[in-house]
Amino acid sequence: MKVSYKGKDFSVAEGRIRKNGKEIAYAEVVEPDVAVILPILENDTILIERNFRPVLGKFIYELPAGHLNRGEKPAEAAKRELAEETGYRAKTLKLEFVAYSTPGRSKSKFFHFVASGLCKGNTHLDKDEIISIRRIKIGKALGMIRSKQIMDEKSIAFLEYYARGKFHGRDIV
Amino acid sequence: MKVSYKGKDFSVAEGRIRKNGKEIAYAEVVEPDVAVILPILENDTILIERNFRPVLGKFIYELPAGHLNRGEKPAEAAKRELAEETGYRAKTLKLEFVAYSTPGRSKSKFFHFVASGLCKGNTHLDKDEIISIRRIKIGKALGMIRSKQIMDEKSIAFLEYYARGKFHGRDIV
Repeated sequence: MKVSYKGKDFSVAEGRIRKNGKEIAYAEVVEPDVAVILPILENDTILIERNFRPVLGKFIYELPAGHLNRGEKPAEAAKRELAEETGYRAKTLKLEFVAYSTPGRSKSKFFHFVASGLCKGNTHLDKDEIISIRRIKIGKALGMIRSKQIMDEKSIAFLEYYARGKFHGRDIV
Repeated sequence: MKVSYKGKDFSVAEGRIRKNGKEIAYAEVVEPDVAVILPILENDTILIERNFRPVLGKFIYELPAGHLNRGEKPAEAAKRELAEETGYRAKTLKLEFVAYSTPGRSKSKFFHFVASGLCKGNTHLDKDEIISIRRIKIGKALGMIRSKQIMDEKSIAFLEYYARGKFHGRDIV
């Protein structure tokens, strides 16, 4: 692997791999894994963020999420990011599923945690973060996916996954 | 914006943006939008791929997907990618939702199309692609999310979104 770019948040490495008689050249975005948190308050209410995304030049709705620090476990990162971004501390974290966000580009895995038993403290945003928090019913969040107000893939995956299990049961007959 | 890396599949550009009195430096992965396709056969059967991902060094289950060519519309790319990767031609494509896969890194939008009215033709894989196709019941696909066999975020989002609407209705009371 040859490192072709090195930045503050990620780097790019180029490599080649042989498979089924093909020699495939590829470029990889090298970056840490991510913890994604679905914070559940009482009465099917969740926390969701308005998060300013410099690359998009606008705010979008997203579940709390952040990269794992070096040596940090996914659940530790989930607790830390939830506290930093929302101010809430979680008594219980449950890992629901793990997914590659961009398997064509990156090994980075997203760990999806449901957070419950929440109590409010203070936020500690990173210096480049501009985030505000909303409390909404999960039914409203699902409506916001349909009405294109929520346009973040990890948040759509997590909200739909959670809602189907919680309100309908997981099995399709 | 300063281009810091230029590759075959994507480039990296660095920029700065002012917001709420902060000056934020960021790096962007510059890449095309993506069409994601959920191909529906009769009897709640779908097509899913075993796709070799060089960055991961392994095969993973994924819905058919691919980048838009320059000047190509999302629905045209969906038709083309579906035909190239699976051999199937779709009579009907319906756009279900649009999402940012990695809003912290990229402006790239994923367009999620349900494809139906399918008839079989020949595949035309890109020279670096190693893909095989499986026909499975959607209920089985949802089970494969739970059992960690499907670990691709866009596929999880699309399967869960589709299944909740199709089998349960969209509203949570």
